[in-house]
Amino acid sequence: MDTRPIGVFDSGIGGLTVVKEIMKILPYEDIVYFGDTARVPYGSKSKETITKFAKQNSRFLLSKDVKAIVIACNTASALALEELNSEFDVPIIGVIKPGASAAVRATKTGRVGIIGTEGTVNSRAYEKMIRRLFKEVEIYALPCPLFVPLVEEGWAEKEVSYMIAREYLEPFKEFDVDTLVLGCTHYPILTNVIGKIMGDGVTLINPAEETAIELKSILFENGLQNTSKRNAEYSYYVSDNPDKFKRVGGNFLNREIENITKIDIEKY
Amino acid sequence: MDTRPIGVFDSGIGGLTVVKEIMKILPYEDIVYFGDTARVPYGSKSKETITKFAKQNSRFLLSKDVKAIVIACNTASALALEELNSEFDVPIIGVIKPGASAAVRATKTGRVGIIGTEGTVNSRAYEKMIRRLFKEVEIYALPCPLFVPLVEEGWAEKEVSYMIAREYLEPFKEFDVDTLVLGCTHYPILTNVIGKIMGDGVTLINPAEETAIELKSILFENGLQNTSKRNAEYSYYVSDNPDKFKRVGGNFLNREIENITKIDIEKY
Repeated sequence: MDTRPIGVFDSGIGGLTVVKEIMKILPYEDIVYFGDTARVPYGSKSKETITKFAKQNSRFLLSKDVKAIVIACNTASALALEELNSEFDVPIIGVIKPGASAAVRATKTGRVGIIGTEGTVNSRAYEKMIRRLFKEVEIYALPCPLFVPLVEEGWAEKEVSYMIAREYLEPFKEFDVDTLVLGCTHYPILTNVIGKIMGDGVTLINPAEETAIELKSILFENGLQNTSKRNAEYSYYVSDNPDKFKRVGGNFLNREIENITKIDIEKY
Repeated sequence: MDTRPIGVFDSGIGGLTVVKEIMKILPYEDIVYFGDTARVPYGSKSKETITKFAKQNSRFLLSKDVKAIVIACNTASALALEELNSEFDVPIIGVIKPGASAAVRATKTGRVGIIGTEGTVNSRAYEKMIRRLFKEVEIYALPCPLFVPLVEEGWAEKEVSYMIAREYLEPFKEFDVDTLVLGCTHYPILTNVIGKIMGDGVTLINPAEETAIELKSILFENGLQNTSKRNAEYSYYVSDNPDKFKRVGGNFLNREIENITKIDIEKY
């Protein structure tokens, strides 16, 4: 039994898709969320820079006395998880391993596709993790940099989204994957578009769901779960634009966001 | 006569379009460029955050003993120019005033359109400056957030660019502007697409050209020009990804980029 909160960080707002899954299966856990909206996006930046940002984010969350840290951002999970684990003492989990396990469970033909940011794809983190679990898998990975701004523009259901998605996804149809990992927190918002283009035969993996399940086992294995059964408390911190976070984030979370505080992350 | 270099900063790589114009009309001036590639983009971030970034960028350039600073980024020019001018002693110029003057000179009907990032458009900086020069002007301004990632993806000439541009530009055709300000450093790369959609009757304004001309007059007025007639030296600093800057920046500048150094901008 441990009533300390869970810390979650992301490059911005997308990590709320992970928070939503955690709220669902761990309803008594307090959550402290940090969205790095002043330095968003992470997807196009280097390992060195992302590691530095991820360490600052973790130090901030630890200053809020969190008992575990979830890296909701695929890019930061891919590039910084190992270094964070060697520097900090609390359990730290990323979204890559849970997403990779789900892909291995889902594939029947052993042909798996991965889409994500440049940073995530170039790191080959999903690829390495999937191959560790299933040696003979065939993997095809591709960055889709326009998907994030498309979602943030609110154009997920417009014709232009289908046009861009067709452009990006054509190689996966040729490669004949039966499983596609949505390796960026924003991509699940495009599930309809991606699903229509890939067709019914392809399973789409949302790592956010798998990550919440992984978090639950880790809390229980380490006796860290909160069994107090009182209403959980949620607090949100951002490095810029709390008003925009409140407005846009509500859609990601399907609930009103209260308790947003702006902080200077460069101090941590 | 002053042989110190000119300092130019931008949120990333786009400001090189301004550097290119400066090189053209001030061929004997040394230039120190800083691209804030670790914190790019600026367009969606708040005034407070952009002002903090712009001050750090200026302090860095001043540490290189620059005699004047050009803010090549429209968003930073719109949000931070005044504060920079009150904090630092060297002449500091942004791209808004030169772009606004050019629009006023170009318009015959007095109906002017402005496109830019969210930050630039919401600041109404172009609007205020244009109205100061020409009271009776009718202005219509709109952010086009997908244009930057579209250019960075290298899709400027693809069909999807026309589709997105048609979506954004329709209101300007209805509003019947005869002049359109390309109020973001990346947008001139889309000149073909925007020109085809707007038609021959609309003049497109590229503030980069106007800014270089403004810089030239300020140097001459203040006796700051370099008349030594030896080859100019150019040095480039970025806060992340020097390799990508070298690769992509060459296209913006139409010349090879040498002398790129990565720095930690948060220290300034």
